[in-house]
Amino acid sequence: MKAVYLDDTGLSVRDDLEQPTLQSDEVLVKVLKAGICETDLQLVKGYMQFQGVLGHEFVGIAKTGKYVGQRVVGEINCHCRQCAYCRNGLGNHCPNRTVLGILNHDGAFAEYVAVPQVNLHRIPDSLCDDYATFVEPVAAAFRLQEQLPLDGDETIIVLGDGRLGNLCAQVLKLAGCEHLLVVGKHPEKLAILREMGLQTVVLNQLEKSKRADIVVDCTGSPTGLPLALELVKPCGTVVMKTTVAGEHHLSMAPVVIDEVTLIGSRCGPFEPAIDALAGGRIIVEPLINATYPLDDAPLAMVKAESPGAFKILLEP
Amino acid sequence: MKAVYLDDTGLSVRDDLEQPTLQSDEVLVKVLKAGICETDLQLVKGYMQFQGVLGHEFVGIAKTGKYVGQRVVGEINCHCRQCAYCRNGLGNHCPNRTVLGILNHDGAFAEYVAVPQVNLHRIPDSLCDDYATFVEPVAAAFRLQEQLPLDGDETIIVLGDGRLGNLCAQVLKLAGCEHLLVVGKHPEKLAILREMGLQTVVLNQLEKSKRADIVVDCTGSPTGLPLALELVKPCGTVVMKTTVAGEHHLSMAPVVIDEVTLIGSRCGPFEPAIDALAGGRIIVEPLINATYPLDDAPLAMVKAESPGAFKILLEP
Repeated sequence: MKAVYLDDTGLSVRDDLEQPTLQSDEVLVKVLKAGICETDLQLVKGYMQFQGVLGHEFVGIAKTGKYVGQRVVGEINCHCRQCAYCRNGLGNHCPNRTVLGILNHDGAFAEYVAVPQVNLHRIPDSLCDDYATFVEPVAAAFRLQEQLPLDGDETIIVLGDGRLGNLCAQVLKLAGCEHLLVVGKHPEKLAILREMGLQTVVLNQLEKSKRADIVVDCTGSPTGLPLALELVKPCGTVVMKTTVAGEHHLSMAPVVIDEVTLIGSRCGPFEPAIDALAGGRIIVEPLINATYPLDDAPLAMVKAESPGAFKILLEP
Repeated sequence: MKAVYLDDTGLSVRDDLEQPTLQSDEVLVKVLKAGICETDLQLVKGYMQFQGVLGHEFVGIAKTGKYVGQRVVGEINCHCRQCAYCRNGLGNHCPNRTVLGILNHDGAFAEYVAVPQVNLHRIPDSLCDDYATFVEPVAAAFRLQEQLPLDGDETIIVLGDGRLGNLCAQVLKLAGCEHLLVVGKHPEKLAILREMGLQTVVLNQLEKSKRADIVVDCTGSPTGLPLALELVKPCGTVVMKTTVAGEHHLSMAPVVIDEVTLIGSRCGPFEPAIDALAGGRIIVEPLINATYPLDDAPLAMVKAESPGAFKILLEP
């Protein structure tokens, strides 16, 4: 089969790969569409030293298993289901896990991907393929609702106007947060957020004062966290939503003096993400720039990395 | 009066200072004993750019106010009592605050110190002067009980065998935490902890694996936080108990991937600290190295900074 493959020699589109061999708990999924994520771009740069088929945001048709013939999306963490983390409902932190397209498990930039049955979620007919590729990142944004005790009165600042910043802002608005400001560098991306009814400001016009109860760092940049610490109130919370390749160089003294809480945030719940996308409560249409065939994946990756890009899709 | 004074020219013992002028809400306290804290050492190095009389751990006799003639200790944050923080019980984070011996308020390495009446706590006769100087740092350790939902079953690692590490370990043991390990560099300090019934390990024999539900960093060193991130479990908590002068250089990716919570922790409640010290449930006797007269404060500061030192007291 054809797939986008990453190894020591870099990224290549290969058509000599075997269909995935299914583990006993896995289902074969024929990929319909897949989205390129910031993490994919980082992986190509060497993050996680991943080798194999890239891709973890996808929609497909189950070819085996109990959803055979139906459209599905898949959670990306494949748990051992035996360790203490798995037994305590923290399977996403299973130390034995593999992760689709990220860690020891081939991903979805391919004609077929193998996914554990328990990771699959059927999607309603009302959710088109393109939008369904957003279930995984929207779920990651919904993780905020699980981790933060939101009552709607908080002053919240989202740093970053990219894919994840946009989705986090939408999810927070959906949770009833009314005092919400998105900070970004790209006027055209901020314009889309304003059309969604969100307040925005360009970074160089941002007033730097400690005024936010919660700051969500979606910048993917080492400058995000120090800025967040300039904006969060004493006893406030900073959510770190994106990993940054390399080291941070910063003073952590404000964390101690202001007794700030920093929370790392990663994958989230699929069901509310599917419901919100299907119900049109999370809007992703303006975030889709283009769809490329798998053969053009290297070009698509370049497009996904350009400053103006939101989401580039691949189609096997 | 005589006092230990810090300014551009460095530390000096002066005897030409006026007794403090009392603000309307302040009480004059005659200082009996005061303790040298890590923060004092940092202030001498330029932290906070403080100028004035040093000292914030003290016991004295109230010369005015409703506790006149009685022995008192004092909370160090002087609040405005009008801002939103003060009105919401977060006076320690009042943006208009002064802090005794740290920020815009003369401290207690002096014959007399001015302290707001509301900051004062009477101490029982059973608590001797020397031990009473520990109320402030013990209160800072009790802050852990306010911030962490402890149920006693957690695996906790305290990094640092110095003054604050010792007190934090004792407070956690008092809270019923049975799976508690203190990591340090000083065999003689670890021996004192073992005599208190605590488990210890020398840093170079520490097994580095992600096994702690909670790690409390009391190292005062930029190496503390990266080590804490090597020891904390996924979804675990790292408490940053000490400020570090200068910058941290570290990868924050584990915080995101493992969804770790980092909490800054500063000042704490005085009443449980007074009760625990007076009741002999927190032991500080082995932590007192020596008492120096105010005139010898510069020498005392040098002693306090030596690797083997715990707590050096000053006596006006």
